[in-house]
Amino acid sequence: MSVWGRNNLKLSIFGESHGSEIGVVIDGLPAGEHIDIDELKLFCARRAPGNSTTSTKRREPDIPKILSGMLDGKTTGAPLCAMIQNNDTHSQDYNNLKKVARPGHADYTAYLRYNGANDVRGSGHFSGRLTAPLVIAGGIAKQLLRNRGVEIGAHIFSVQNTKDDVFDAVSITAKQLLEVQKKDFAVLNDESGEMMIQQIETAAKQLDSLGGVVECCAVGFPAGIGSPMFDGIENVLSSILFGIPAVKGVEFGAGFKASKMAGSENNDPYCIKDGKICTETNNHGGILGGISSGMPIIMRVAFKPTPSISQPQKTINFIEQEECELIVKGRHDPCIVPRAVPCVEAAVAFALLSYLV
Amino acid sequence: MSVWGRNNLKLSIFGESHGSEIGVVIDGLPAGEHIDIDELKLFCARRAPGNSTTSTKRREPDIPKILSGMLDGKTTGAPLCAMIQNNDTHSQDYNNLKKVARPGHADYTAYLRYNGANDVRGSGHFSGRLTAPLVIAGGIAKQLLRNRGVEIGAHIFSVQNTKDDVFDAVSITAKQLLEVQKKDFAVLNDESGEMMIQQIETAAKQLDSLGGVVECCAVGFPAGIGSPMFDGIENVLSSILFGIPAVKGVEFGAGFKASKMAGSENNDPYCIKDGKICTETNNHGGILGGISSGMPIIMRVAFKPTPSISQPQKTINFIEQEECELIVKGRHDPCIVPRAVPCVEAAVAFALLSYLV
Amino acid sequence: MSVWGRNNLKLSIFGESHGSEIGVVIDGLPAGEHIDIDELKLFCARRAPGNSTTSTKRREPDIPKILSGMLDGKTTGAPLCAMIQNNDTHSQDYNNLKKVARPGHADYTAYLRYNGANDVRGSGHFSGRLTAPLVIAGGIAKQLLRNRGVEIGAHIFSVQNTKDDVFDAVSITAKQLLEVQKKDFAVLNDESGEMMIQQIETAAKQLDSLGGVVECCAVGFPAGIGSPMFDGIENVLSSILFGIPAVKGVEFGAGFKASKMAGSENNDPYCIKDGKICTETNNHGGILGGISSGMPIIMRVAFKPTPSISQPQKTINFIEQEECELIVKGRHDPCIVPRAVPCVEAAVAFALLSYLV
Amino acid sequence: MSVWGRNNLKLSIFGESHGSEIGVVIDGLPAGEHIDIDELKLFCARRAPGNSTTSTKRREPDIPKILSGMLDGKTTGAPLCAMIQNNDTHSQDYNNLKKVARPGHADYTAYLRYNGANDVRGSGHFSGRLTAPLVIAGGIAKQLLRNRGVEIGAHIFSVQNTKDDVFDAVSITAKQLLEVQKKDFAVLNDESGEMMIQQIETAAKQLDSLGGVVECCAVGFPAGIGSPMFDGIENVLSSILFGIPAVKGVEFGAGFKASKMAGSENNDPYCIKDGKICTETNNHGGILGGISSGMPIIMRVAFKPTPSISQPQKTINFIEQEECELIVKGRHDPCIVPRAVPCVEAAVAFALLSYLV
Repeated sequence: MSVWGRNNLKLSIFGESHGSEIGVVIDGLPAGEHIDIDELKLFCARRAPGNSTTSTKRREPDIPKILSGMLDGKTTGAPLCAMIQNNDTHSQDYNNLKKVARPGHADYTAYLRYNGANDVRGSGHFSGRLTAPLVIAGGIAKQLLRNRGVEIGAHIFSVQNTKDDVFDAVSITAKQLLEVQKKDFAVLNDESGEMMIQQIETAAKQLDSLGGVVECCAVGFPAGIGSPMFDGIENVLSSILFGIPAVKGVEFGAGFKASKMAGSENNDPYCIKDGKICTETNNHGGILGGISSGMPIIMRVAFKPTPSISQPQKTINFIEQEECELIVKGRHDPCIVPRAVPCVEAAVAFALLSYLV
Repeated sequence: MSVWGRNNLKLSIFGESHGSEIGVVIDGLPAGEHIDIDELKLFCARRAPGNSTTSTKRREPDIPKILSGMLDGKTTGAPLCAMIQNNDTHSQDYNNLKKVARPGHADYTAYLRYNGANDVRGSGHFSGRLTAPLVIAGGIAKQLLRNRGVEIGAHIFSVQNTKDDVFDAVSITAKQLLEVQKKDFAVLNDESGEMMIQQIETAAKQLDSLGGVVECCAVGFPAGIGSPMFDGIENVLSSILFGIPAVKGVEFGAGFKASKMAGSENNDPYCIKDGKICTETNNHGGILGGISSGMPIIMRVAFKPTPSISQPQKTINFIEQEECELIVKGRHDPCIVPRAVPCVEAAVAFALLSYLV
Repeated sequence: MSVWGRNNLKLSIFGESHGSEIGVVIDGLPAGEHIDIDELKLFCARRAPGNSTTSTKRREPDIPKILSGMLDGKTTGAPLCAMIQNNDTHSQDYNNLKKVARPGHADYTAYLRYNGANDVRGSGHFSGRLTAPLVIAGGIAKQLLRNRGVEIGAHIFSVQNTKDDVFDAVSITAKQLLEVQKKDFAVLNDESGEMMIQQIETAAKQLDSLGGVVECCAVGFPAGIGSPMFDGIENVLSSILFGIPAVKGVEFGAGFKASKMAGSENNDPYCIKDGKICTETNNHGGILGGISSGMPIIMRVAFKPTPSISQPQKTINFIEQEECELIVKGRHDPCIVPRAVPCVEAAVAFALLSYLV
Repeated sequence: MSVWGRNNLKLSIFGESHGSEIGVVIDGLPAGEHIDIDELKLFCARRAPGNSTTSTKRREPDIPKILSGMLDGKTTGAPLCAMIQNNDTHSQDYNNLKKVARPGHADYTAYLRYNGANDVRGSGHFSGRLTAPLVIAGGIAKQLLRNRGVEIGAHIFSVQNTKDDVFDAVSITAKQLLEVQKKDFAVLNDESGEMMIQQIETAAKQLDSLGGVVECCAVGFPAGIGSPMFDGIENVLSSILFGIPAVKGVEFGAGFKASKMAGSENNDPYCIKDGKICTETNNHGGILGGISSGMPIIMRVAFKPTPSISQPQKTINFIEQEECELIVKGRHDPCIVPRAVPCVEAAVAFALLSYLV
């Protein structure tokens, strides 16, 4: 299912990497909301391929076209459909994927799931390219959230072992979140960024790839939103975040680190600052009992290294049921983490918006 | 919402920590499935409090009573309602929670969410006690999965910094999963377990608490089940796992470690073993593109330390809007991780069953 | 599935006719709402059996017991579970239903659906008795709606060919809706009611049964609520109304009669009355494009005659696959329509509430 | 919401009457299913406007274009997006709809719902034109159902007071259902059809419109599918059927007529015919307890007369809050029932398919 939804807000993503178009239908957007298309394009451009040495050489302008749900720059309340043309496709690169599984990819599991009828060109519907419609949906959600006082931003927390600085979980501001989004390489500390870029370039030269972690934050989200058990903010965010290909872990607040702390360390003392109830630390990541506390909502999302590498790899031909060697061709990101930053923002924005409309 | 569901299988949990009963309605169980009530009671007993030095002193036998949906030991196809009596409640312990927030608890967020109308006694519906109905649902699901060749087991992966051995992600067997479930303290390596127990006892003496990580595994789950994007196994499992109170992170396969690996390391080479397609390593945790690969499904779930500690803590009175100090009374687990093991198994079992019925 | 829900409001019904208890879990009720239990009991009593010559001789007090989700007379925001004991069960009446299908009942279809594992005693989960938990949920919903200015009422529109007066679709008031609810036999015109009662008694003497139609109305529901296509008020109401056993048709406003009208007759002219936009007639039943217009919401629900009749009937033994004759034993309503009135109100109330919370 | 779904099968419709495109995303179609595009076009042509004297003069070829989810004539398992271009739009016809409500239309309710931001041109997303994407989805569903032995067909049961013959509810065959679909005017009795056409033409000349009823039937649907209470076939079908604009009533089997029958008449005696369990009559419409019996599934759907008529009508200017007179311009069907026939088939097909995939 490429449908995600909560209550009154739903999205339905369609398309394949090498089909003619990819897109998304968003249902439940409130009517009369102004959407700044230029800003939306800028947001989509942050994810678009071909911008730098760290990403695939596939060139796609990725200009979203709005087919419905908008009139005179405003939402009409009807479902909004947005589409992107696929242009730069090299489908001949994928001819042997109908029988030989790329390690780390979904070729074999998709073959089983769809009895071999799935479109394998460019990984078909499994392609990271399908995050482009998600980014459209999230870009629109971000604008609606901003009108409601909520700002969402993310940065590259780490690539391999190189870490960026971290968001200040207590005092991060909307302005800081906006600043990092303007950078070509979304890090807080540009020196760390330089190191990451070098590592990615080195990996690329070695016909290898790297993974990393994206940290995302929402500020201004009202306190008292969410529910215990299964409709909590953590449940809802993780249910959409794992929809981004290559995500293998999600944590909130102190996350896995909290498992190593004592209660006396992990518990965030409450205090009153400028007449407002806050916590002195933010190990809870802005969520307690599934409900927002008013503190910044913070999470980290782990991405595995791009599975497409051009080194020879041991694998199988699942049609012939025999082992073989494979060299993956095609154009790929040596590290998807830089382009994953707006994808994470988009998923978080869409999910959080579902609580407010 | 305390409703969770996928397609034909849904659960609805109700009750408060100090109400008369807690329970669950499960809708969509296939008809004619034999449920072994004794085995179900044993599974519930693994979660029940009061069994050891590492858990709360509250004594609850937690015997589930089946009110509907079963006849002559078999499911009827109608909704199954199971209930547990609350007996050993000390509600006077919670009198000041209507105004003073326990750090790390949902008292303040619940107050905002429910305008102060929520039942605060024993944390009400936010209590870890509400995992008892989840465990009933999961215990039933485990039995149905076993009839379908799927076995689920979990162990205490770590408490604070002390680690247990890990599941062999490639060759773990149903038998091994069953063995660890029989232990009083669910670790693979009993020496590690002893150390963990000591650490927990020490923390308890210091009026403190500890967190930890639970590792869970499913073997025998058929390959080719799941979907890309939002109905993938990772999405679905995380959406229910974050429903267990105190969970702050979920990762699959190599998880966050994958973010530090190169593609050449993280990619699991395919091979053919005994005529069956496998992978030589299992960094993908049995899931690729949201779809099962036939390898063991492996995940780790991070638990924060129990927020209830009896040390003085800085907090606020949210009615009076003033800072104050709090010493939490009541009976609490100094570390919930040991009792969380069957909760994780239960959540995973119920979610995986939803793909097979 | 005995789960129904929309957005933030869900119910899950459980139980079998001759099980120990039946009940409902309602999730998503707003917190802090006062529930008048006496009034709820009165509402449940309107559906309870054994009150008159027109209903089954089974005696059930049907007193709901609230297990969770309420404290000090108010909702807590946590799931509300309410239960009713089954007392007066004569299970031996149903012994041959495991193989012989009662015409008009679900015995045979349930046998196929559940492979014979379903509980046949008193029709099990298919029993009209399962409307008791629905009535609890609807009774609570009615109280919450009343606090929001919405009143719901229904009457017996017809039994066989005898018709009651109709609601004035334009000017019906909350007061009128409340008055008819107080009557033992819910008709507007008591003479018509007398005739209906006589017809039902006659049918009962002839070992036969009768069907009828219930008309239901909601006044005070705000204008501008609902959606086109699949989340319209008509879609939502019908999806729950067909959950009441024996319902075979649902129509809104002029309904099937509209199909015989010209546009110039059926179109309701708009006008302004007391400064408020209204329509002069109400053939649209208060709903246009799935959205409320502010006029009374009006619908009619067709009930088939009770299938349980004590005349000999031709049927089959589906185990032996042979034709046979059957005389249905047990205690049954010769006409369920009088007791269906609060069931319809309940379903409508719960569904409409889902738009307002 | 223009999203409809059950379990693994979902659709999301988008577009406005005078936008550039309208379309649908279908998620959950099984992979590897051959779709005959020519047949799909023929099915869409049955709904397309401009074919006869009884329909609107708007000319739209309505050729669906498949953007995703198909490869080499087969479904891939990924979401299928299909689109239709809007060509023949006369938007100037609708300029005053932003303030003056057409009686019987959703102009005023939509204005309230969307605060005036909705697209009013050609009724926007409320237009009957939005059934074109539904027909695409249903046309695909019909083909998949046919491969599973299920055939769906409908006819014009009545226009105003003129009735067609009825389907033989017991012995209707797939062949008969296919035959009526080939006709330009979908009636069983062509003489009745002629009368209907004359009535429609007369109404058109009088600047008026007519309503009618569509009867739909599914044969070959397996017995034992469905559920009691809220996931029954009647609930599910009605929840989608009321999504077709102008539907005001839905009934199954004997429907409202059953309310006038005695149990001894309405109960369908079971019998064995050619070794197969059947009923001698089919007042239950193939559904008992929400579950299919194996008999033809039969329903009737009431359509109100087209609200757009060119006579002067009394209405209001809702911006100025004053009464006024309106003459509706634009091109409209004097009776939508003929074109509604494939819409009903489509809705039924899609909903029934959701039980089989």
